[in-house]
Amino acid sequence: MAASLNWGIIATGGIARAFAQGVAHSKSGRVVAVGSRSLASAERFAGEFGIPRAHGNYDALLADPEVQAVYVATPHPQHVEWTIKAAGAGKHVLCEKPLSLTHAEALPAVEACRRHDVLLMEAFMYRCHPQTAKIVELVRSGALGRVALVQAAFGYAGRFDPTNRFWNKELGGGGILDVGCYPVSFARLIAGAASGRPFAEPTAVCGAVQLHPETGVDTCAAATLEFASGMIAQVSTSIVVTQDNSARIYGTEGWLHVPDPWIPARESGQVRLRLHRGAEPVPEEITVETGDWLYGLEADTFAAALAAGKREVPEMSPADTLGNMAVLDAWRACAGGS
Amino acid sequence: MAASLNWGIIATGGIARAFAQGVAHSKSGRVVAVGSRSLASAERFAGEFGIPRAHGNYDALLADPEVQAVYVATPHPQHVEWTIKAAGAGKHVLCEKPLSLTHAEALPAVEACRRHDVLLMEAFMYRCHPQTAKIVELVRSGALGRVALVQAAFGYAGRFDPTNRFWNKELGGGGILDVGCYPVSFARLIAGAASGRPFAEPTAVCGAVQLHPETGVDTCAAATLEFASGMIAQVSTSIVVTQDNSARIYGTEGWLHVPDPWIPARESGQVRLRLHRGAEPVPEEITVETGDWLYGLEADTFAAALAAGKREVPEMSPADTLGNMAVLDAWRACAGGS
Repeated sequence: MAASLNWGIIATGGIARAFAQGVAHSKSGRVVAVGSRSLASAERFAGEFGIPRAHGNYDALLADPEVQAVYVATPHPQHVEWTIKAAGAGKHVLCEKPLSLTHAEALPAVEACRRHDVLLMEAFMYRCHPQTAKIVELVRSGALGRVALVQAAFGYAGRFDPTNRFWNKELGGGGILDVGCYPVSFARLIAGAASGRPFAEPTAVCGAVQLHPETGVDTCAAATLEFASGMIAQVSTSIVVTQDNSARIYGTEGWLHVPDPWIPARESGQVRLRLHRGAEPVPEEITVETGDWLYGLEADTFAAALAAGKREVPEMSPADTLGNMAVLDAWRACAGGS
Repeated sequence: MAASLNWGIIATGGIARAFAQGVAHSKSGRVVAVGSRSLASAERFAGEFGIPRAHGNYDALLADPEVQAVYVATPHPQHVEWTIKAAGAGKHVLCEKPLSLTHAEALPAVEACRRHDVLLMEAFMYRCHPQTAKIVELVRSGALGRVALVQAAFGYAGRFDPTNRFWNKELGGGGILDVGCYPVSFARLIAGAASGRPFAEPTAVCGAVQLHPETGVDTCAAATLEFASGMIAQVSTSIVVTQDNSARIYGTEGWLHVPDPWIPARESGQVRLRLHRGAEPVPEEITVETGDWLYGLEADTFAAALAAGKREVPEMSPADTLGNMAVLDAWRACAGGS
């Protein structure tokens, strides 16, 4: 694949840096511009990553004719606004997760991209990694038998800081939106794979959510999802305790442990799956190796869909995003008694 | 401790055998009689374990004047009946879990033992193992910080057999009553330890339960428990898939992995806990070693409480049993939508 997709990055935080590095290691793209609310910040970022142009505001980046696709890396509450504006400017959009704070707010973003005929993908980079493809293949192949239960966790112990967006309810803080969206997306992916579809929606969601007494953000939360197939999923998240951050898929013929489902081999390399078959005491180790960087794979996956004339990325389509947001809504609604 | 407690065993199934072997390795007891619905079966069992007397029915065992305590090892639906009859005969009772099929049915069993002034313990043998004491000590000590989340699983892949009690609803089949009671009892234990009490009750229970289409027993189930302290627990069970059957306790200062919480070192030996502190990449391994057999420890714990003149065993009191049964009721009620 020739380097053919010109990216612009909106905002210059940690995830923007990860993406810029990823694109630099991608097969398909290059970052041609970065936009920040401050020109100095944009120029610093551009200098660090060898990006040709720095813009002192996001609108200028969207007006940059060389930019074909934008990566929206703003704080959560601005995702929808800049996705819609990017679509209006005719730019394809890779938007950092979550696309929005609620399912309802995601709808106009999805609609804007459809109307302006641009590609939209929510940036669940793990969906683009070959490990995830391998997991889906194992489930589809029946290697685990009928999948009855999925457990997936993503939580970390963050330092309390009311000035940080993670601890600010208005800025979309809390664990569910920040990292709880991963286990939910994983459970829906596996429920789909188990029934021959790209994803599936739960028919019931219940759980428990602990809110911070001062800021009201969810600090620790768990939920049970039930699918029409009978599959059950247990998901958990937190910003006050570090969890094992792994996933387990239990089937009637065996179970798969995914020690590193969310950020597998970020700068290329190996990841391992452990397949416990039947009564065998020692699991089979399945190695997935890639020379690609995780965020580079995300950029390449996006570019490949675009090159194929698609208006959605199969690994994370807008319909998938909307389904995920609906579950996050339901999970957050468990606060104060399910 | 001298061998001073004379046990009678009611029924001769797999768990009765495990207990007979355990008592043989205990410091405090000996089995003096076994009762079965068939004299031949009782005699076979007595011969195998060197038990002096075999009775051809349970009533005869209860009438045996040398028997001081009975172990009720019948199928689940007969637990209450024989616990009450044993109490009436003035025998102390160690009853296989679950004590009953529902909380309501447990009440008369607890009341009978109280009225007849005999000791009653539900046979959660893992509660008597030093590993469990070590876990409780770690939680109480604050080594994990504030405990926010507990995850505990116990499930196995059983072969479908409608003639087996595990698959028969009337005989108390299904995962929740058979092994799901362990994770629930563990979550309640940790919630208690985290708040300086022997156990604590959840203020909310929700979950999902899959029922077998033919027999109606629960084949796979998950639940979220929420405690007044804010602690959340995720529990799971199954009789169609083998789970990792471990427990994890997540606190603000670190988390503890218990790879083998339910049947630790059954015939004596070492078990290991893994304590992940803060951001340290490698967990601290905590070894718990004992020369005692698991079911022997259960018999010794029971005998020690009795020798101390107690009418409940602190490791698993009747109040603890009643609380556990109430949660199992709530969990089973999640079937068909929570």
